[in-house]
Amino acid sequence: MTTGVRRRMGVEERRQQLIGVALELFSRRSPDEVSIDEIASAAGISRPLVYHYFPGKLSLYEAALKRASDDLAARFMEPHEGPLGARLLRVMGRFFDFVDEHGPGFSALMRGGPAVGSSTTNALIDSVRQAAYVQILSHLGVTDPPARLELVVRSWISLAESTALIWLDGRRIPRAELEAQLVHDFAALAAVSAAYDEEMSALLRRVLKDEPADGPFTDLAGRLMALAF
Amino acid sequence: MTTGVRRRMGVEERRQQLIGVALELFSRRSPDEVSIDEIASAAGISRPLVYHYFPGKLSLYEAALKRASDDLAARFMEPHEGPLGARLLRVMGRFFDFVDEHGPGFSALMRGGPAVGSSTTNALIDSVRQAAYVQILSHLGVTDPPARLELVVRSWISLAESTALIWLDGRRIPRAELEAQLVHDFAALAAVSAAYDEEMSALLRRVLKDEPADGPFTDLAGRLMALAF
Repeated sequence: MTTGVRRRMGVEERRQQLIGVALELFSRRSPDEVSIDEIASAAGISRPLVYHYFPGKLSLYEAALKRASDDLAARFMEPHEGPLGARLLRVMGRFFDFVDEHGPGFSALMRGGPAVGSSTTNALIDSVRQAAYVQILSHLGVTDPPARLELVVRSWISLAESTALIWLDGRRIPRAELEAQLVHDFAALAAVSAAYDEEMSALLRRVLKDEPADGPFTDLAGRLMALAF
Repeated sequence: MTTGVRRRMGVEERRQQLIGVALELFSRRSPDEVSIDEIASAAGISRPLVYHYFPGKLSLYEAALKRASDDLAARFMEPHEGPLGARLLRVMGRFFDFVDEHGPGFSALMRGGPAVGSSTTNALIDSVRQAAYVQILSHLGVTDPPARLELVVRSWISLAESTALIWLDGRRIPRAELEAQLVHDFAALAAVSAAYDEEMSALLRRVLKDEPADGPFTDLAGRLMALAF
C-alpha cells in the first residue's frame, strides 16, 4: 500500500514522529547522552528543522516522557473481573514490559539528575504514580481510603519502582519472579498494616475473601506458614 | 565562660557556621525558597561575605546536605548486640528523628527538582542509601549477599524513604507506629522472598532463630497467624 513517494508531513504529524524517534533514543540510553543531532539524523531531517518543532532538547524530552507516561498509565488499566491477585499479576507483567522496553531511560529518569530533574518531568512521574494509586483503589473498591491504606498503596508503588530499578541493574533475578513477588509484597505490606489496625484488618478480610485457593495470595499464605517463622 | 567580646572567626570556623545556619534554613523550608540574603542575615554577616566562602547557593546547599548526610549515616550505627528486630527498631527511631528535624528539606530533596537534582546531591543520597545497606548486611552477618537479599534490603530502604515522605505529608499516622511497621515490613519482604527461594529461606531461618518471643518479629508472626489469611 506504500506509494514509494515521500510526502511532506503536516506539523502535528512531524511532531509526533519526532517524539517517537526521540522516545526510542531516550529509552535506549541515558537522555544525557542523546544529542539533537542524533535525533535529527534518526528522523531523517536537519537539526534546524528539529528546533523548528521543539525549542530545545528538554522540551523534546518532556514530550517523549509525556508519551511514555501515558503509555505506562494505560498499562495499569485492567478489567474489574476475576481474583485481585491475578489482576495485579497481569498489571505487573505489563509494567515490567514497559520497564524492559525503556530500561536505560527509565533508570536515568527515576535516578534523577540535571537533564531529567525538571519540574515538568517530576510532575509527569507523579501523575503516573497517581494513576497507579487510583487504579489500585478502584480495584479494592475503596473511594475514601483511610490514611493507613493510602500509605500501604503509595509505599508499595515506590517499592515496585525500586524493584524494577534494581532489576534493571544487571537483571540478576528473572523478571517473572519479581512480578509475582511484588503481588505478594502488596499482600504482605497490607497484612503488616492489618496486624496492628482493625480498620485495615476488616478491609483486608473483605478484599481477600474471594481469592481462589490456587491464587497468588493463598499460595503465599501457605508458603509463609511453611516457614518456621 | 564567654567573654562577651565578638572575635573574628577563622575561615574553616566561618564555613562551618554558615553550613550550620544554611542547613537549619534548608531543613525548615524547601531549598528553593531560601535565599542567600536570608542565610547571610541569619549568620549575621553580609551577602558578599557569604559568597566569599561559597561561590553560590548550590555549593552551600551541597555542603549543608553533606553534613546532613553524614549525620544520618551516623544514626544507622548500632551496636551488634541483642535481637535484630530491636536493633532495627532503634535505628528507625533515629531515622524518624532525622526526618522530623529536617522535614521540608528532606521532602524537597527526595522529591527532586531543579534546585536539588544536581549530580552531587544525587551522589550524596546514594551514599546514605549505601551506608544503610552496608549496616544492614553487617547486622545480618552477610558479606557476600545473594542477588535476592540485595534486592530485599535495597528495596526495603526505598520503602523506608517513601514511608517517611508519606508520613511528612500531613503526619496522619503516629510515627512510632510507622517505625515498628517498617521493622515488620522488613521481615515481611524477606519472608516473601524466602517463600520462593531456598537460599533466602535458610538465611532468614538463621537470622531469626535468636529472636526473642516478645520481640517485634515474633509478635508480627503471631498477629499474621491471627488474621484469617
